[in-house]
Amino acid sequence: MESLTELEQVALAAPINLADGHPRHMPTDGQRRIVDRLTELFDAAESEAFEQLEQRAQRAFLDSLGQRSAPLTDGRVFSLYSSSVATTVLATCLLRREARVALIHPTFDNIHDLLSGAVVLEPVAEEALAEADLGRLGRGAPTCLFVTTPNNPTGWLLDQERLERLASACAAAGHLLCLDTSFRGFDRRAQFDSYDVLERTGVDYVVIEDTGKLWPVSELKLAFVAVSAGLRDEFGHAVRDVLLSVSPFVLRVVEELAADAARGGLERLHALIARNRAATLAAVDDIEGIDVPDPDARVSVCRLRFESAAEADRVRRELAGAGVHVLPGQQFHWADPAQGGRDLRLAVARSPHVMDEALRRLRHVASRRSPVGEATR
Amino acid sequence: MESLTELEQVALAAPINLADGHPRHMPTDGQRRIVDRLTELFDAAESEAFEQLEQRAQRAFLDSLGQRSAPLTDGRVFSLYSSSVATTVLATCLLRREARVALIHPTFDNIHDLLSGAVVLEPVAEEALAEADLGRLGRGAPTCLFVTTPNNPTGWLLDQERLERLASACAAAGHLLCLDTSFRGFDRRAQFDSYDVLERTGVDYVVIEDTGKLWPVSELKLAFVAVSAGLRDEFGHAVRDVLLSVSPFVLRVVEELAADAARGGLERLHALIARNRAATLAAVDDIEGIDVPDPDARVSVCRLRFESAAEADRVRRELAGAGVHVLPGQQFHWADPAQGGRDLRLAVARSPHVMDEALRRLRHVASRRSPVGEATR
Repeated sequence: MESLTELEQVALAAPINLADGHPRHMPTDGQRRIVDRLTELFDAAESEAFEQLEQRAQRAFLDSLGQRSAPLTDGRVFSLYSSSVATTVLATCLLRREARVALIHPTFDNIHDLLSGAVVLEPVAEEALAEADLGRLGRGAPTCLFVTTPNNPTGWLLDQERLERLASACAAAGHLLCLDTSFRGFDRRAQFDSYDVLERTGVDYVVIEDTGKLWPVSELKLAFVAVSAGLRDEFGHAVRDVLLSVSPFVLRVVEELAADAARGGLERLHALIARNRAATLAAVDDIEGIDVPDPDARVSVCRLRFESAAEADRVRRELAGAGVHVLPGQQFHWADPAQGGRDLRLAVARSPHVMDEALRRLRHVASRRSPVGEATR
Repeated sequence: MESLTELEQVALAAPINLADGHPRHMPTDGQRRIVDRLTELFDAAESEAFEQLEQRAQRAFLDSLGQRSAPLTDGRVFSLYSSSVATTVLATCLLRREARVALIHPTFDNIHDLLSGAVVLEPVAEEALAEADLGRLGRGAPTCLFVTTPNNPTGWLLDQERLERLASACAAAGHLLCLDTSFRGFDRRAQFDSYDVLERTGVDYVVIEDTGKLWPVSELKLAFVAVSAGLRDEFGHAVRDVLLSVSPFVLRVVEELAADAARGGLERLHALIARNRAATLAAVDDIEGIDVPDPDARVSVCRLRFESAAEADRVRRELAGAGVHVLPGQQFHWADPAQGGRDLRLAVARSPHVMDEALRRLRHVASRRSPVGEATR
């Protein structure tokens, strides 16, 4: 089975690419004004001390998402090229700890793939995480939980109350709590001050924050990884195996984009995603046999559920034939791909006219049901 | 013992940083004209198909360094964020192969650190590699060779004849040959058409090419990894665990910088490095007890060898006290740090006035010999 990113790579050249969750809509006027100043930002970055520049970019980004208690001034936030690079660094730490990891299920498959080389993984369902029911993690006797929140593809999340419960349970059990919050920017319900909660519970933690899903700026992005005090030296050492520093220029661009987000850019992004999610729901509303399993999600990806895996597969293939690439559901269910067989995932961080044309073709393909014999083959 | 990159990180805030090998000299006029066009390059990148953009940047860079037979059109050159990220991807492939790796000794320590989590490593000396003497690799029965060429910190390299011999020996033995050519740009003797040699011998290979050491452009850089036909799918799958694509914008910038290098930028870089290496040699020429172990090297780092490890350590510490940070030699000798005890490594990709002031302080510190009792303690 191909990985999701391999399928996304094929879609890069497609007429309409709803495969990857990267932001591919038109930049807003505010973002455009920043792109118009790239040379100025390059020069500004070169003329400033790196540490100061880095801390200001981290502050601007984390503040814009409500993370005011992030441990910035304590040397506990690290800048990396991307959230996936951050996950590889985390994997080396988990390997050295000989950790056994309970990983959220389903989630994007590369998290599983990057960790599975280093540690033993067992799946944990969103419901068990919501209830902080560590008893349900039984068999593998995990020493670490890894949670994508908000989750990709479901949009499920740990709100403040759930995070508090889960972090407290992990602290009591001595488990390391790892969070991938790459989709935090899309959902205000994930923008409470997580670090205040984490620090109060005393849990050991690693949080991977990501600028890469939010702004359509040619993949100029960073991950910021925040860790609890006890993990600073261990994680910092692993970071320095991979890089000396990220680009000062990219830090400066991120700072400007975060300031724009705080000045209303985030609302504009939320409006676009809400518009495209609503258009998706409307497009399939009158088509029999298509459900929307996550109606309350606010992330930039949207699942559709079909009556059967064969029908989901037919729609995905015929849609690709019509020039529109989306992702299948199987690979997200890394421990049991069949569970995702009826799902397709559509990326909705796209310009409205692109989204609407894709949905027009989806309606056409999905309405043209295959003969029963073929669909159930 | 701290890693070299941890020491480099401390030096980022130093008054004079000769620690890291990153390019920190003033941009040339040609490079400056490219920086002045960043917004234009951003827009150009956004308006073009990714595959075409990527292949043109790879072509421009590899051609500028004489690598005309690199397997570009065969989907066998992958773009990554950096050479270190490329090494982590390679590590996952080597882990899956359960490879036993003979790694060049000495070399920059993070190569060892990134691979050692995944595979068993044994050291192999430059002399054995030069003679393609695989018999000297004895004990660990390696299945893979990893060679940094030109090497960091020594500047030693595989010229065409040596590469041909080594690749043929690896092909005959069934060994995978991995090359890190990050410093290729500095030395014309490494700019013969390596891929023509590699393909002719039929060896399995992975070559990590790197734009990151050459141009002072705020860490806007990429690694390009070329692999032999048999490794395309295996390496490509591992790449897609880490990223979907690099930044189109950075690809466009790299293409322009490579074109500038081909138009004379490389000669200007070579002149700067030669000037700073000569200044370094001249600065220590009349100081007793300092040797230059690599007089023929052309890379952007330069070793000095002292009479004793204690004296090297004294000079490094007092130099840091005088605001000039350089690297110690021990960590490069990852299998036997004591071998590097007498060495210091100076980065010379710096503007002449910075280099000269650093050398002035070095002369002052190195001439002020410590009492014998202290130096031999």
